[in-house]
Amino acid sequence: MTDFLWPIRIYYEDTDAAGVVYYANYLKFMERARTEYVRALGFEQDDLKEQQGIFFVVRNVSLQLHKPARFNDELEVVSSITRIARTNLIFTQVIRRVGEEEIISEAEIQVVCVSVTSWKPKGIPAALLETINNNEN
Amino acid sequence: MTDFLWPIRIYYEDTDAAGVVYYANYLKFMERARTEYVRALGFEQDDLKEQQGIFFVVRNVSLQLHKPARFNDELEVVSSITRIARTNLIFTQVIRRVGEEEIISEAEIQVVCVSVTSWKPKGIPAALLETINNNEN
Amino acid sequence: MTDFLWPIRIYYEDTDAAGVVYYANYLKFMERARTEYVRALGFEQDDLKEQQGIFFVVRNVSLQLHKPARFNDELEVVSSITRIARTNLIFTQVIRRVGEEEIISEAEIQVVCVSVTSWKPKGIPAALLETINNNEN
Amino acid sequence: MTDFLWPIRIYYEDTDAAGVVYYANYLKFMERARTEYVRALGFEQDDLKEQQGIFFVVRNVSLQLHKPARFNDELEVVSSITRIARTNLIFTQVIRRVGEEEIISEAEIQVVCVSVTSWKPKGIPAALLETINNNEN
Repeated sequence: MTDFLWPIRIYYEDTDAAGVVYYANYLKFMERARTEYVRALGFEQDDLKEQQGIFFVVRNVSLQLHKPARFNDELEVVSSITRIARTNLIFTQVIRRVGEEEIISEAEIQVVCVSVTSWKPKGIPAALLETINNNEN
Repeated sequence: MTDFLWPIRIYYEDTDAAGVVYYANYLKFMERARTEYVRALGFEQDDLKEQQGIFFVVRNVSLQLHKPARFNDELEVVSSITRIARTNLIFTQVIRRVGEEEIISEAEIQVVCVSVTSWKPKGIPAALLETINNNEN
Repeated sequence: MTDFLWPIRIYYEDTDAAGVVYYANYLKFMERARTEYVRALGFEQDDLKEQQGIFFVVRNVSLQLHKPARFNDELEVVSSITRIARTNLIFTQVIRRVGEEEIISEAEIQVVCVSVTSWKPKGIPAALLETINNNEN
Repeated sequence: MTDFLWPIRIYYEDTDAAGVVYYANYLKFMERARTEYVRALGFEQDDLKEQQGIFFVVRNVSLQLHKPARFNDELEVVSSITRIARTNLIFTQVIRRVGEEEIISEAEIQVVCVSVTSWKPKGIPAALLETINNNEN
C-alpha cells in the first residue's frame, strides 16, 4: 500500500485576516485529494453517478489543526483509506508542507456511498471496492 | 422606487491574509442581496424553478473595488434594478458601511432568465416582470 | 443557561453540484454563530485582539453530517459552551431547520485562546471567562 | 510574448446547486493564474511584500460568463498583461476547457500596486516592471 499524495498551493482565497489558512478550507483540500485519489484508482465520480447511480457524501469528520499554514505555502495531502465497509469508507488524511515532517492538520473522514435517487446508503460498486482493497493491502 | 437594503456582517471566512475582504466575496454579498430583493418582491427562486421552469444566471459583471472592508464590519448592500428587458435585468449594487456614505465597492450585474431544461434565454415570468416594473418606477 | 440561536439562510454560494450545502460550509455557519455568541456576551473579537492581545483559533473539530440542507433553507445554529478551561473552550453546536427538530449537522469544536504575538496558548481574559461561566451555569 | 496558461480542475467546492461553477469562483481561478504568472516571471508576492513593501489589490473587474463549467471539468486560464502603467496593470484572462476553443468566461482585471503601510498606489518595482515589459512585448 502506498499513500496517495496531492499537492496544494495556498492562495489568498484560502487565507483569512489572521494571516493563515481559514480552518474550514483544510476540508476543501482534503476533498480535492480524495477526488484525485479515486481518479488515480481509475474511477471518475461523474461516471459513477451516471453509470452506477451512486455518489459519496461525507458523514463524519474528525479534524485536528496543529499548526497554521500561510499564503504561498506548498502543502501536500497524504491520504489513505483506513477502513473499508460495504457502504462506507474512512479516509485518513494528513497535511504537511512539502518536504517537512511537521503535521499542519489531519483528519479522519467517513464517506458513505448513497443512491442518487434515494440518498440512502448503497453498496460501493464492486469494481471500485476491489480496486481499493487491492491498493490498500 | 426605493432601493433595497440588505445588511452583511463580515466574518473571518470573508477576509484574506491582507486583512481585508477577499475581492471575489463582494460578489457573494451582492448575490445574497439580489436573492433577498426578489424574495422581498414576493418571489422565491426555488418556486420559480419548479413552477415556471426558469432561473437566473449571471452574464456580465462590472465591479469596482474602492475601499477595503474588514473583519467585523457591518456593511449594507444597496440594490436597484436599473435596466429591465424581456429576458434579462441589470442590477446596480453599492456596498457601504452602515451609516457611512463612502462606497466600498459597487457593481452592475446583468442576469439572464434561462430555461431550466435548455439553459437558453426565456422571457421573465409576467408576474415577476410586472412587480419589478411597479417597484422600480 | 440558555442556548444561543443564530439564523442562517442558505444561498447559492453555500451549495454544490449535488444540490445540497457543501460539507465544509457548515463550519462557516458554526463560526458565524460562535462570533455572534461572543458578541452577544458583550465581547468583540477585534477589541480582544487589540486590547488583550489574544484571539481564538480552532484546534479540534468533530463534525457529523446527518441530513442535507438545500438552497433557500432557513437554518439555525444552536450553540452552547460545554467545557471551559483556562486557555480553551469547547462549543457544542447543532444545526436544524427553523422550527424543526431533526438535526442536519452537529459538532464539537475546541477553540484555544492564543497570544497575537507568539500564537502560544494564553489564559482567556478574566472578564470574558467570568461572563461565559455566568451564562453557561 | 506568450500567453501564460494555468490549469484548473473543478471540484465540488467550486460548484453550486445549479450544477455548474458558482460565478464568483471564476475570479478565484483568475487570481490563482495571476499569482502563478507573476511567480513564473520570477517574483513571489510574499517577497515583494516583505522586501519591497508592496502588494497588489484588485481595483476593477469586467467579467463575462459565456458558458457554464461543471464538476470534473479541466479548464485552463489564459492570461496576458494588456496594459502596463506605473502603478497598475490590466490582466486579460480567458477561461476555456483544455483543448477546446469555446470561451467559458473572460475578464479584464485591473490591479494596483499599493504600499503595505499606506495602502496608497506606489510604483511597481522596477525589476518586475521590466520583466513584464520584456515578457509582454
